[in-house]
Amino acid sequence: MNTPLSHANSRVKEARKLSRRSVRTERRLFLADGPKAVEGALTVPGCVVEVFATVAAAEQYAALLVDVPQLWLVEDRAMDSLSDSVSPAGVVAVCRFLDVDLADVLSSSPRLVTVCADVRDPGNAGTVIRTSDAAGAQAVVLAGHSVDPYNPKTVRASVGSLFHLPVVLVDDPGQVVRALQEAGLTVLAADGAGEVDLFDADLAPATAWLFGNEAWGLPDELAALADHRVSIPIHGSAESLNLATAAAVCLYASARAQR
Amino acid sequence: MNTPLSHANSRVKEARKLSRRSVRTERRLFLADGPKAVEGALTVPGCVVEVFATVAAAEQYAALLVDVPQLWLVEDRAMDSLSDSVSPAGVVAVCRFLDVDLADVLSSSPRLVTVCADVRDPGNAGTVIRTSDAAGAQAVVLAGHSVDPYNPKTVRASVGSLFHLPVVLVDDPGQVVRALQEAGLTVLAADGAGEVDLFDADLAPATAWLFGNEAWGLPDELAALADHRVSIPIHGSAESLNLATAAAVCLYASARAQR
Repeated sequence: MNTPLSHANSRVKEARKLSRRSVRTERRLFLADGPKAVEGALTVPGCVVEVFATVAAAEQYAALLVDVPQLWLVEDRAMDSLSDSVSPAGVVAVCRFLDVDLADVLSSSPRLVTVCADVRDPGNAGTVIRTSDAAGAQAVVLAGHSVDPYNPKTVRASVGSLFHLPVVLVDDPGQVVRALQEAGLTVLAADGAGEVDLFDADLAPATAWLFGNEAWGLPDELAALADHRVSIPIHGSAESLNLATAAAVCLYASARAQR
Repeated sequence: MNTPLSHANSRVKEARKLSRRSVRTERRLFLADGPKAVEGALTVPGCVVEVFATVAAAEQYAALLVDVPQLWLVEDRAMDSLSDSVSPAGVVAVCRFLDVDLADVLSSSPRLVTVCADVRDPGNAGTVIRTSDAAGAQAVVLAGHSVDPYNPKTVRASVGSLFHLPVVLVDDPGQVVRALQEAGLTVLAADGAGEVDLFDADLAPATAWLFGNEAWGLPDELAALADHRVSIPIHGSAESLNLATAAAVCLYASARAQR
């Protein structure tokens, strides 16, 4: 075990730079913050490069940290600088990027896939990844100008599912829709103005759900590429659901139909 | 129209005190922040006491504000002190409390009711109110040590549904369960360890859903009071859903069965 590193230590400083998207993208590395995320990362062979822990956390999570490739003890202030949590749990892992190619996902004949086009809120993206995993989806595609899945808030909101469910990053959402259709999936656009009621939709076939931006939904031209535009029935005075709850309702309707 | 009031004006100062729960509870008044919330409040007769608006917002939302009982123009800094938004929309209403008695709700023979026991996150509570409204529930009960529904974050996350759906506040969650059962509703506890799978549950009868705290769920003794403990099937590696998405899945399963 090393003497705890200070926040000025060069190794800590290099890891801290991973809070910036540009640095993450360049190095293809990101930070997994907290024992749940580190535990998830350790289930993926070769994912964890090194782990930083406070002395107290290294003791508390000794069983978890026994097999990490490189463990660095750090001072509390160094941990504060690595974690974006208000109250850091004291353990942060530097992890290799996990995203895979869409072709890899399609080669495994998925039955349920989530596609987000231009999802912008990191917490929403993480919740959608977690919910997709829980509903039995086999992959999540983040398309267009979507949030970085390696954003610390997204990693945290996914509660480990980022390390379990394949995530795909594609610039052009239209290209994703066409590739999914060519692979035999029915693409359903979740659209408040959709012509098919969710509870009338045929959800038994292999399906990809297409969700739009939190504020403005799906662009018409993208929704038009889907096989159907599906609306969740809205009662009361509510105008809509938020993205994460709408995704949960759609994905679980599919899970039910496909079981 | 008055000269815009400064943040030091006594009327602005009195309204600002409503950011504190103790003051809200004492005066039975709260703040509705932003045009959506003010629009919702104005649909409830007698709810709005007065509205504060910046000069720009008073112009932009002139049609909305035409019928408000008292409109006070305020300086930007005064608006910043009234709003908890990072970028205030410029219009805030002082509103009367809206919560009703459980007996009033039960006298209207509701078919679908949401009960939250010890929900602590203001955003979650607001999202559950919005989702309950969208799914066609007739009321939301916040029981136990739940968050104040008049918290600005809850009001905002409800996106107007707080002004549409009756909200009931009760200290003892067990008392709520018994009253709902006596009124003929089946009480279903959403419980990850529940013995009934959501998709096998009989959701056609009048139903109340009981949801627990974000972190620790429902206490065993409370879940035991429900007629059934219902679990959402969880696939993949996810351990659970978050409160708002779990509530969405359960409430929409009921909406589907009851249509």
